[in-house]
Amino acid sequence: MTTDQRIAGIELGGTKVVCGIANGDGEVLERTSIATRGPEETLGDTRAWLEPRLGNASGLGIASFGPIHVDPASPRYGRIGATPKTAWQGFDLLRALRDWTELPMALDTDVNAAALAEIRWGAARGHQNVVYVTVGTGIGGGIVSNGRPVHGLMHPEIGHMKPRRLPEDDFDGTCPFHGDCFEGLAAGPAIAARWGKPLNELPADHPAFAMEADYLGQLAVNLLLTASPTKLIFGGGVMNCTELLPMIREAAARHLNGYLDLGDLSTGSGELIVTPGLESNAGLLGAVALVIDAS
Amino acid sequence: MTTDQRIAGIELGGTKVVCGIANGDGEVLERTSIATRGPEETLGDTRAWLEPRLGNASGLGIASFGPIHVDPASPRYGRIGATPKTAWQGFDLLRALRDWTELPMALDTDVNAAALAEIRWGAARGHQNVVYVTVGTGIGGGIVSNGRPVHGLMHPEIGHMKPRRLPEDDFDGTCPFHGDCFEGLAAGPAIAARWGKPLNELPADHPAFAMEADYLGQLAVNLLLTASPTKLIFGGGVMNCTELLPMIREAAARHLNGYLDLGDLSTGSGELIVTPGLESNAGLLGAVALVIDAS
Repeated sequence: MTTDQRIAGIELGGTKVVCGIANGDGEVLERTSIATRGPEETLGDTRAWLEPRLGNASGLGIASFGPIHVDPASPRYGRIGATPKTAWQGFDLLRALRDWTELPMALDTDVNAAALAEIRWGAARGHQNVVYVTVGTGIGGGIVSNGRPVHGLMHPEIGHMKPRRLPEDDFDGTCPFHGDCFEGLAAGPAIAARWGKPLNELPADHPAFAMEADYLGQLAVNLLLTASPTKLIFGGGVMNCTELLPMIREAAARHLNGYLDLGDLSTGSGELIVTPGLESNAGLLGAVALVIDAS
Repeated sequence: MTTDQRIAGIELGGTKVVCGIANGDGEVLERTSIATRGPEETLGDTRAWLEPRLGNASGLGIASFGPIHVDPASPRYGRIGATPKTAWQGFDLLRALRDWTELPMALDTDVNAAALAEIRWGAARGHQNVVYVTVGTGIGGGIVSNGRPVHGLMHPEIGHMKPRRLPEDDFDGTCPFHGDCFEGLAAGPAIAARWGKPLNELPADHPAFAMEADYLGQLAVNLLLTASPTKLIFGGGVMNCTELLPMIREAAARHLNGYLDLGDLSTGSGELIVTPGLESNAGLLGAVALVIDAS
């Protein structure tokens, strides 16, 4: 891989598609952003921008919202699964893209891809066991173990675990499948529905912050106790409220209650739970990292 | 690896040590069981049995209760971490064994090792993404992702996540760190403390069964949503109550509420959540599998 190489990437998100061209050093050369609607309109606009730029590219990476079938051995490889975004349910994303180009393609979830990009170029350089959480219109997470993204029956869908409810919180939750799972209680739409405003329009001493930090702290604990990451990255729109990160660390430490002996490890909790190094390019560069890892 | 090869294994559990000799096909040739007390007495008896049998062995595997430092690059490699078994806290297990023999050694948690053994010889043959849960004096779990055991900051400690409490359950929980985590609510000692008897002495229509199945079903869901295994194995003494397995499957499906589309996958939930193939040899053969994987 060199700085001369051109790799195309598509991050298909619930709100927007980010697509672009990067080089093999993870430098974004060109990018654009397209509103996510139904598959036809969204991919029509994406193709119009991307197709003329594919001539010099060596591959196309796709980092998609989930659930999506990511096992190349599955007959459903590249298809979107059961999602609240009904227009996309069952859509064969990979087949659609193969109509555009014969470039080699690599596919994973947006969050698995972002974790790989953060390892290669961002906040988790040199780490092999990393979790990347996004807290935005939903809550998703990618897990990399021993340097490789975690797949299996499907892929991680960490936002649908359930936290212990706070006694003062009687909100029903917004998840159509589970009501008050982490996503249903702590993603952007849940915050807006519970408090009438997004977090960034509430004052820093508003109880919404402590509640959000407690739920995300519980999520951090579940991830530390399963994936055992040495870097746990929290990104996504809600994390733009910079007050949250230290509050999440504190809540995670409170819930762990000394169990993992973090103080004695070289990665103390301050270094362990961090925000992304690549910011809004994490998904796009994740798509690019997938191509590099596959080649 | 052949049937001629002799590999020694030690499974260090909270109640007993199982040690033995197996061949490279996972056939146990000799084994014994020793009560776990403090390190000196326990390892003294273990050495007395094992040392005369090490002459023809090609390696020694150790599958230990956790937390234990399993990163070979760590200065604490092979030491027991913060455990309620206070006599063992900080004990340098690997150094103690190196006084006995110069054989190559391989070390992991009992449950990571058991997952590897179930992949190699048991209920998860051919699978690459497997979780092995033990429900006994504690609740622990091993995770194998892409064929390799999950490590990182430490190793999985899944029993210390917290379930959603059942409204009819006001038991405080037995975990000295977290009170009512999965281990504190659903391991053997919690069942005995809550109901006055172990599960196998209660009638099959006793409410203890539905409660136990609900908590273990929630645990199964957390594991499916993080590690995404294609085999999720529940072993340990409590699982000797054979009524539990189908109840756990049902509870897991109820809590997932259709989210992972399990019915459409080749591994339906009946095949997905299973009991161990190696039964009481899983830990010992796990220790043996560690040696084979390392060689």
